[in-house]
Amino acid sequence: MRTRAVLVRAAAETFAEYGFAGTTVSRIAERAGLTLGAMYFHFKSKEELARLILTSQPEPVVPPLDSRGLQHAVDLTLAWAYELPGNPVLQAGARLVLEQRLFTEPHVNSHRRWTGLLLEDLEQARRRRELRAGVDTEACARLIVSSCTGAQIQSRPKTSYRDLPARVEEMWRCLLPALAVPSAAKKVRFGEERVRAASL
Amino acid sequence: MRTRAVLVRAAAETFAEYGFAGTTVSRIAERAGLTLGAMYFHFKSKEELARLILTSQPEPVVPPLDSRGLQHAVDLTLAWAYELPGNPVLQAGARLVLEQRLFTEPHVNSHRRWTGLLLEDLEQARRRRELRAGVDTEACARLIVSSCTGAQIQSRPKTSYRDLPARVEEMWRCLLPALAVPSAAKKVRFGEERVRAASL
Repeated sequence: MRTRAVLVRAAAETFAEYGFAGTTVSRIAERAGLTLGAMYFHFKSKEELARLILTSQPEPVVPPLDSRGLQHAVDLTLAWAYELPGNPVLQAGARLVLEQRLFTEPHVNSHRRWTGLLLEDLEQARRRRELRAGVDTEACARLIVSSCTGAQIQSRPKTSYRDLPARVEEMWRCLLPALAVPSAAKKVRFGEERVRAASL
Repeated sequence: MRTRAVLVRAAAETFAEYGFAGTTVSRIAERAGLTLGAMYFHFKSKEELARLILTSQPEPVVPPLDSRGLQHAVDLTLAWAYELPGNPVLQAGARLVLEQRLFTEPHVNSHRRWTGLLLEDLEQARRRRELRAGVDTEACARLIVSSCTGAQIQSRPKTSYRDLPARVEEMWRCLLPALAVPSAAKKVRFGEERVRAASL
């Protein structure tokens, strides 16, 4: 790994574990096995690293199976849920977005970008006639992001995120009858095979 | 107000503003206008105050209008959403439950108690034949708590919780077609009159 990538990973691990307030540049440098000088050569502050991690999301999440509309929205949230337990960059993002004072500008707000991606999927689902008449796609996209945020917060202390995929699937099973026409709801697939296909 | 109540309120305001890590006992005493000695006479640590605030929730939330089943579940979440912007104890609870390391035991976990209350309402709704066949009431109760948690987190930096009632109403409007039979869904009422009736 290049030094910069090593530093981003070390920062992500530190933010995920200690939050923004509990993280110091020297703690990051130490975890990266680098001197403070090397650290400051690449990043001028922990805030710069935090912003980089937040603005990079949700790019680390790419569902491996090709899908469209409703199934793509499901795959995106499942990929995130399966990826989170082992991905410090996603964990840091999930934690930093809660430290609200520093990271409220729209361009570092990952909730907002997630909502935009899900809205695109739901609009595509509408064009594919998967949605029930009268569904408010914007409201539903916000609801999905809110519930994933809430589920992630409850999942961490209980199971270190291990139960997150089950919570996301459960969310969809509750929501689908409101969102999708029965024929489209019946076709939606869940489970680890949606996100692990690429590595088989 | 008695000294103890003054201290709880001062602690709630401080936790809501600075989080658990950013709060010190002297900051609480100062805000309460009391000496450190007076503070320690009542509470031995900031942790004791934090636990008291968390275990007291959601008791501060009581919908003023009499209702049952689905409407009671709606009223409970609306009362919380309208109350939060002006209630430091609820705000502190909302923030402290995110500081996961310290407050993960079931009896201080307000998410868990909220889920239990909503489950009771949904089970009552089932007995009143308000629910669609096959609705998983436990999963739905968890989904409602997750989305309220997520909505609250996004609402604070954007609007200091002012848009929270609209977000909660939007959540219900998305969910109701999945939860309720059409006749019951149509009867559900929203809006400030559900929670302000008592003060009129």
